[in-house]
Amino acid sequence: MSQPIAFVSHRPVIALMTDFGVGDGDVGVMKGVIAGLNPDTHIIDITHDVAPQNVPSAAWILAASYRYFPRGTVFVCVIDPGVGSSRGAIAVHAGDWYFVGPDNGLFSYVYAEQHVYEAVALTNTAYHLPHVSSTFHGRDIFAPAGAYLARGVALHKLGTALALDTLIRLESATAIRHGSQIEGHILHVDNFGNLITNIPLSIVPDVFSSAAVKVVFPSGVILEQRRRFFADGPDDGRPFIYGDSSGYIGIAVRNGNAATTLGVGLGTAMTFVITEK
Amino acid sequence: MSQPIAFVSHRPVIALMTDFGVGDGDVGVMKGVIAGLNPDTHIIDITHDVAPQNVPSAAWILAASYRYFPRGTVFVCVIDPGVGSSRGAIAVHAGDWYFVGPDNGLFSYVYAEQHVYEAVALTNTAYHLPHVSSTFHGRDIFAPAGAYLARGVALHKLGTALALDTLIRLESATAIRHGSQIEGHILHVDNFGNLITNIPLSIVPDVFSSAAVKVVFPSGVILEQRRRFFADGPDDGRPFIYGDSSGYIGIAVRNGNAATTLGVGLGTAMTFVITEK
Amino acid sequence: MSQPIAFVSHRPVIALMTDFGVGDGDVGVMKGVIAGLNPDTHIIDITHDVAPQNVPSAAWILAASYRYFPRGTVFVCVIDPGVGSSRGAIAVHAGDWYFVGPDNGLFSYVYAEQHVYEAVALTNTAYHLPHVSSTFHGRDIFAPAGAYLARGVALHKLGTALALDTLIRLESATAIRHGSQIEGHILHVDNFGNLITNIPLSIVPDVFSSAAVKVVFPSGVILEQRRRFFADGPDDGRPFIYGDSSGYIGIAVRNGNAATTLGVGLGTAMTFVITEK
Repeated sequence: MSQPIAFVSHRPVIALMTDFGVGDGDVGVMKGVIAGLNPDTHIIDITHDVAPQNVPSAAWILAASYRYFPRGTVFVCVIDPGVGSSRGAIAVHAGDWYFVGPDNGLFSYVYAEQHVYEAVALTNTAYHLPHVSSTFHGRDIFAPAGAYLARGVALHKLGTALALDTLIRLESATAIRHGSQIEGHILHVDNFGNLITNIPLSIVPDVFSSAAVKVVFPSGVILEQRRRFFADGPDDGRPFIYGDSSGYIGIAVRNGNAATTLGVGLGTAMTFVITEK
Repeated sequence: MSQPIAFVSHRPVIALMTDFGVGDGDVGVMKGVIAGLNPDTHIIDITHDVAPQNVPSAAWILAASYRYFPRGTVFVCVIDPGVGSSRGAIAVHAGDWYFVGPDNGLFSYVYAEQHVYEAVALTNTAYHLPHVSSTFHGRDIFAPAGAYLARGVALHKLGTALALDTLIRLESATAIRHGSQIEGHILHVDNFGNLITNIPLSIVPDVFSSAAVKVVFPSGVILEQRRRFFADGPDDGRPFIYGDSSGYIGIAVRNGNAATTLGVGLGTAMTFVITEK
Repeated sequence: MSQPIAFVSHRPVIALMTDFGVGDGDVGVMKGVIAGLNPDTHIIDITHDVAPQNVPSAAWILAASYRYFPRGTVFVCVIDPGVGSSRGAIAVHAGDWYFVGPDNGLFSYVYAEQHVYEAVALTNTAYHLPHVSSTFHGRDIFAPAGAYLARGVALHKLGTALALDTLIRLESATAIRHGSQIEGHILHVDNFGNLITNIPLSIVPDVFSSAAVKVVFPSGVILEQRRRFFADGPDDGRPFIYGDSSGYIGIAVRNGNAATTLGVGLGTAMTFVITEK
């Protein structure tokens, strides 16, 4: 759905994603740790406003983002409801990138879409901060691991090798097409109130060429408009179906908020129906 | 109203402004694209919380900011209700800076305040991402254009030259003074609830030296206090008139929130009256 | 409570903390000023969402953060209800770091925890912006001071030396232990709704080894659960006591929000009782 970016960056990039918000200073602390270990790093925030402890939502945001970062980028992702428990802390080399975080399914889309070369449990305490707390592994384990990787430390030095088939994967959220009907749901509500579904554009190449399309919500609401551009949306505020830039079917209202208009949010079920020509 | 900053930066700066919010990861994706094309760039966020699709508000925030960035800074601004439609995508060299974004009036204040040297439509697909979506030109067109400019690519290479008088300009929001009375409105409400009006300090040099000043709201509420510093504001919570650091007349409440106190927000009309000595 | 980080950064780091929010562009403007004066700086945000004009809250967030930044980091902190008044503008060398901001108690924890080498009033206008406004010293005085310090300008050049005992200190917010009972209050509510108290872990080394612990709120609500990890919290939503990564006693709800559950917020008083074995 998205193109690979082939450019090579010579300054190491660390991309951060958490559910910490930016009000507490915790994200700043992680960046301070990284800057101390690796002064040349370019640190980029994906977002820190993931819905608290919502691993599936975070996994999807990462999936829509990682391809656009330069080769060699280290993604440090801390959505970690199990911090301090026996859940694993891992670093993974997959495709052209590195992924660091808890082993809880955060990287499920990456595993499905990229070749996974190597994974380790972050057990080597030489690459942790000297004192590891029980509640802030983002600071004490994950930020240092990311900084060392970006500095060129080999992945295998960070801990013990993991069998790749043991990595935790979320049950796939991606919708499957059976003929002309697809059972899906809302995966993400964006800043404009656009509703992003779990229906990849790759399984509906006929979304604009078929005779008609239809989204049916459990409430009985039915949408039948489709548009290529937001600016082409109906003037009268009717919601329309479009191809979102993340690579999934979306639902929008021109100059409006589809989530509010439809009273629909994260997780709402919907049926997508395609009428062939 | 503000001083030019004459310092020269040797590391290219790209300043970003959008209405995307930071919850979706889209801003992170734009930064990933920039880092891939131009690893040495220093990326600085102006804000990503512009009121959705509010071009006049974004234009004003940019106007209050751009002078403080180093010479050569590339501003990538994506408040773009017309994305995917026939609205132009442009890059402009004006004053000591470059401006990239949709041609929808975002750069109106810049055009009014600076010499505009050159403008192009971003039509050269060699400087786009390989695949351009219909809904996310921030990622696919504007971020790459900014990265290439910051890397030293000449403006004219990015597309076809535009006649400067065809650039879209918003109708001026700046208030005009007719003698002792000025009809204005609220241009911006800041994080403290201070109300920034569209009355530039340059047209009221006598704001503190005149016999009296007065702000009258349509509700009938009248303000007559004026202060140079927040800390000098009345103790009793009465709102007062001051000269905002953006270069415009503002209204504040000491240790309080003027917007809430007065029940006034973006766009509210007001009359400013100056009584001469 | 936290370990010193001994790594040396070769690229200067400036860490920013304000109560400006990120919606107005003011933080971006400060970064533009810094980039103009010192292009190589790595600018890191601690947070810009400090409760407006809440100096004690900001002081605590800084206290929980600064140790994790590299030696030589310059902290520019602007929570400044007295801007434009006679309150001092200062730069301080304490421990391995520099601190720039208003002299209003923001650095109280730093003074208590680190050796203070030197402090100056920022009176040398050669290191201000050419025009200084009355309401935005973050842009006009503090950002430039931070940029010059990070560029290697000696502290004493920025202004006149201050007697160290004249620096403003907040009355200590840190709780004192008297035997088995500690009178405390809630210092911070984090992004997950965890309640952080003003009881440092250093005065309760027996929090997990004592026979029992108890938190009593004025409402009469009593908590008696204690856990080392969030993931070990009671399944039934009962709040529990833990050691927060900031170095203070915290109160959390597993997969929930303790602030909401308990109806408790910033400043709420509480008594902590330890029953010896």
